[in-house]
Amino acid sequence: MSTQDAIELLGLLAFAELSAQMRLAVDAALSPTPAHRLTHAGLSANAHGRMVALTNLIAEYGVDGQSVVVRYNDAFADYESRTRSETWYERVLKGYVGHSVALDFCKLVAEALPDNLQERITAIIGKTNESENAAAILSAKSESDPTFASRLALWGRRLVGEALGQIQGLVISNPALERLVIAAAHNLGTEVSSPTVQEQQKLETAWVFSKLTADHARRMDRIGLAA
Amino acid sequence: MSTQDAIELLGLLAFAELSAQMRLAVDAALSPTPAHRLTHAGLSANAHGRMVALTNLIAEYGVDGQSVVVRYNDAFADYESRTRSETWYERVLKGYVGHSVALDFCKLVAEALPDNLQERITAIIGKTNESENAAAILSAKSESDPTFASRLALWGRRLVGEALGQIQGLVISNPALERLVIAAAHNLGTEVSSPTVQEQQKLETAWVFSKLTADHARRMDRIGLAA
Repeated sequence: MSTQDAIELLGLLAFAELSAQMRLAVDAALSPTPAHRLTHAGLSANAHGRMVALTNLIAEYGVDGQSVVVRYNDAFADYESRTRSETWYERVLKGYVGHSVALDFCKLVAEALPDNLQERITAIIGKTNESENAAAILSAKSESDPTFASRLALWGRRLVGEALGQIQGLVISNPALERLVIAAAHNLGTEVSSPTVQEQQKLETAWVFSKLTADHARRMDRIGLAA
Repeated sequence: MSTQDAIELLGLLAFAELSAQMRLAVDAALSPTPAHRLTHAGLSANAHGRMVALTNLIAEYGVDGQSVVVRYNDAFADYESRTRSETWYERVLKGYVGHSVALDFCKLVAEALPDNLQERITAIIGKTNESENAAAILSAKSESDPTFASRLALWGRRLVGEALGQIQGLVISNPALERLVIAAAHNLGTEVSSPTVQEQQKLETAWVFSKLTADHARRMDRIGLAA
């Protein structure tokens, strides 16, 4: 694991938090009740705090954190433009799915990093209660409105497809992330093995994405929606 | 000055900061460069911090701060819906004008509060560099693009009219704010005087709004736009 690769992952993670901050503030602005507005405003500010903590962590390597974050400015642009949500609840699900998949990916890939760095990342991104909030909102909504729930379930399947496609695109276009994915799969002891290195790496990458898909299914389960 | 009236002003101020947080996050999301995005994201998080400080101040009076803030949930809805901006720079000017007028109003009316409370409010809302940032962006833009500058100047006149109308509407519909406006004008020693109390109060209220208009003109001047 090179330091440069670690910095790339931290940059992606910091941008994921910046995206979350902006998204949650819009959730606040559009929220159906003043109470939801206040909750989302607080979550938005928290996401900003995590971004700052991550850019500070990058700075410890003698690199300007913000200059790394801005490289990921368009990292989720495809996901955003391909999943225009119509209702506030669809927005919340979109954030829940997209941010969770991005975070799960970063956590998984962080397995390629030294233990102490992994722990520091976990200490920063572990502080979120954004998913719990989204899960509570979406569970309540799908319980009270079964028709809407099946629409949400459909939307969730669409979202996870786009989210995984977005992450795959990122990995393909970013050699540092690709190296980390392969190293993480190794470290996690995937049981895939193949005679050629290239084939082996493909299988390991596929294994990472199958894990993300399984995580998503568990998440949808938790809010009472079929994955 | 009753405590209840002070709480109302703090609630309005806290909501102004919540609005600023949400607006600045959207500015970040829509910003033309990644650098502007990071700046606005930081400003958004700072506005949230001020909102929290203000609700904590309300809580010192034994009142739940959030319950006061949510009463002002629609305080700026007319201004928002009547001033749809087309470009990012128009958005920035809209925020600059709207938030500045709201803040100037609150600061002016805070003259009706006891000195120590005034100081505490100033300590909280004095920490913003949002206006400096907007002024820098708008000055640079109007210097580099004179045609756009005259469009912005026109937009600024439209905005201040709507902002003052919004504040007047708030004062008329909120007896606590109306009492504070009259008390502040008294404390500031307006030189208006009239034989009837009602007429006197009308003149004092008008004086407050003429002061806000003058503040706005100075602000537009600073960014090189005709008020």
